Amino acid sequence: MKRMKATIAYDGSGFAGYQIQLKTRTVQLELLRALKELHKGEPVEVVASGRTDSGVHATGQVIHFDTPFSMPTDSWVRALNVRLPQDIQVYNIEQADADFHARYHAKGKIYRYKWNRGKLINPFSRNHLVHVPQQIDVGRMEKAAQAFIGTHDFSSFCAANTNVVDKVRTIWRIDFEEHGEELHMVIEGSGFLYNMVRIIAGTLLEVGLNRREPEELADIIAACDRDAAGKTAAAHGLYLEKVHY
Amino acid sequence: MKRMKATIAYDGSGFAGYQIQLKTRTVQLELLRALKELHKGEPVEVVASGRTDSGVHATGQVIHFDTPFSMPTDSWVRALNVRLPQDIQVYNIEQADADFHARYHAKGKIYRYKWNRGKLINPFSRNHLVHVPQQIDVGRMEKAAQAFIGTHDFSSFCAANTNVVDKVRTIWRIDFEEHGEELHMVIEGSGFLYNMVRIIAGTLLEVGLNRREPEELADIIAACDRDAAGKTAAAHGLYLEKVHY
Repeated sequence: MKRMKATIAYDGSGFAGYQIQLKTRTVQLELLRALKELHKGEPVEVVASGRTDSGVHATGQVIHFDTPFSMPTDSWVRALNVRLPQDIQVYNIEQADADFHARYHAKGKIYRYKWNRGKLINPFSRNHLVHVPQQIDVGRMEKAAQAFIGTHDFSSFCAANTNVVDKVRTIWRIDFEEHGEELHMVIEGSGFLYNMVRIIAGTLLEVGLNRREPEELADIIAACDRDAAGKTAAAHGLYLEKVHY
Repeated sequence: MKRMKATIAYDGSGFAGYQIQLKTRTVQLELLRALKELHKGEPVEVVASGRTDSGVHATGQVIHFDTPFSMPTDSWVRALNVRLPQDIQVYNIEQADADFHARYHAKGKIYRYKWNRGKLINPFSRNHLVHVPQQIDVGRMEKAAQAFIGTHDFSSFCAANTNVVDKVRTIWRIDFEEHGEELHMVIEGSGFLYNMVRIIAGTLLEVGLNRREPEELADIIAACDRDAAGKTAAAHGLYLEKVHY
């Protein structure tokens, strides 16, 4: 058996998230179906770097699985993509070390959050950008974001309904990119708690809209209380962009 | 009563075309529903510059309707957009002459056809670009496109199942634009027959893929026979971009 590492992209709009669930369409379900078909009916287990929520997208999710097959990369990519729906596509696949683990070996991740600052909703990106027609002060967001850099207890930025005990994580960088009407927040860190990127995005947006001051962020982090932070930003602005190993 | 002229955009992915039909979701159905709601239950008729097929998009479709209401443009845009689904949005609206007619007064139209030349399908644009991973020779397409310019009988480029008798139309320009992996064909003319842009796009693509010669186009037009032309390109690459009045 060979352990394969694959990089995949998916449009989260049509999925009830990554993880398999009864009676709903999920990314994992489609991956298992495609791999089983390729393996002539034999079930194949798939492990991802982490789950993504309903509506959340990925441009660089990483998965691993074991297979008896040997094929060049191009053949693997083709063999899987013809069996996958067009809203999930494999971008790269390669043989990994036998003990490679997509989740446990992840050393860090990059997420991207996208807002549309246009006056009107764009029908073509309605599921891929979050519409904020109000004036956003990006400089204030950049200033506020500095409070996150480093190692902190991120309890204030974690959905209340989680089982995770250790909420200390390290954020390496938060950058803002302006592409015409689009505003992107790019965040890179060692790991992220449940809803952490979306709560950070929602809280920083409130600073950008002058509803909070940049100076409040340190206190919000120190509070270790979900109620201290801002709203969870909508799922459909979020992209898992890269997993570091 | 005032006659209003509105410019709208829609993502064709979720619609069975523009025109109202029994038991399917169409653009016209959503427009009528939103206008009726705004007019407190009174039905309002809507006339578009023309129909678009199932899956075809619009960035500049034009409609007209009559109303007793007076509002500034911004209020009209807001009042309609909050009542419309996010895959249809009104971009502009203004009072027109009392006899303005979105269909009969159209003097010409611009359509855009979009291909994705990337090696792999992009899950995020799967419904908005047609994937052609093969090498496309754009220079050959540009050369072949010249045969269309001017006034011709376009019977070879009209779906066979049409009632239209006069198939003479004038094409003013066909331009190709390359935006990274995207290839766009922009076509502007006095009017277009049923499926005409898609058959032109499909035939020119065959030239770009070296399956036809640019010199064949004049004969294909002269044949006045649908079977002489190439395949009808997929609906989801097509955008109605502008209507001239």
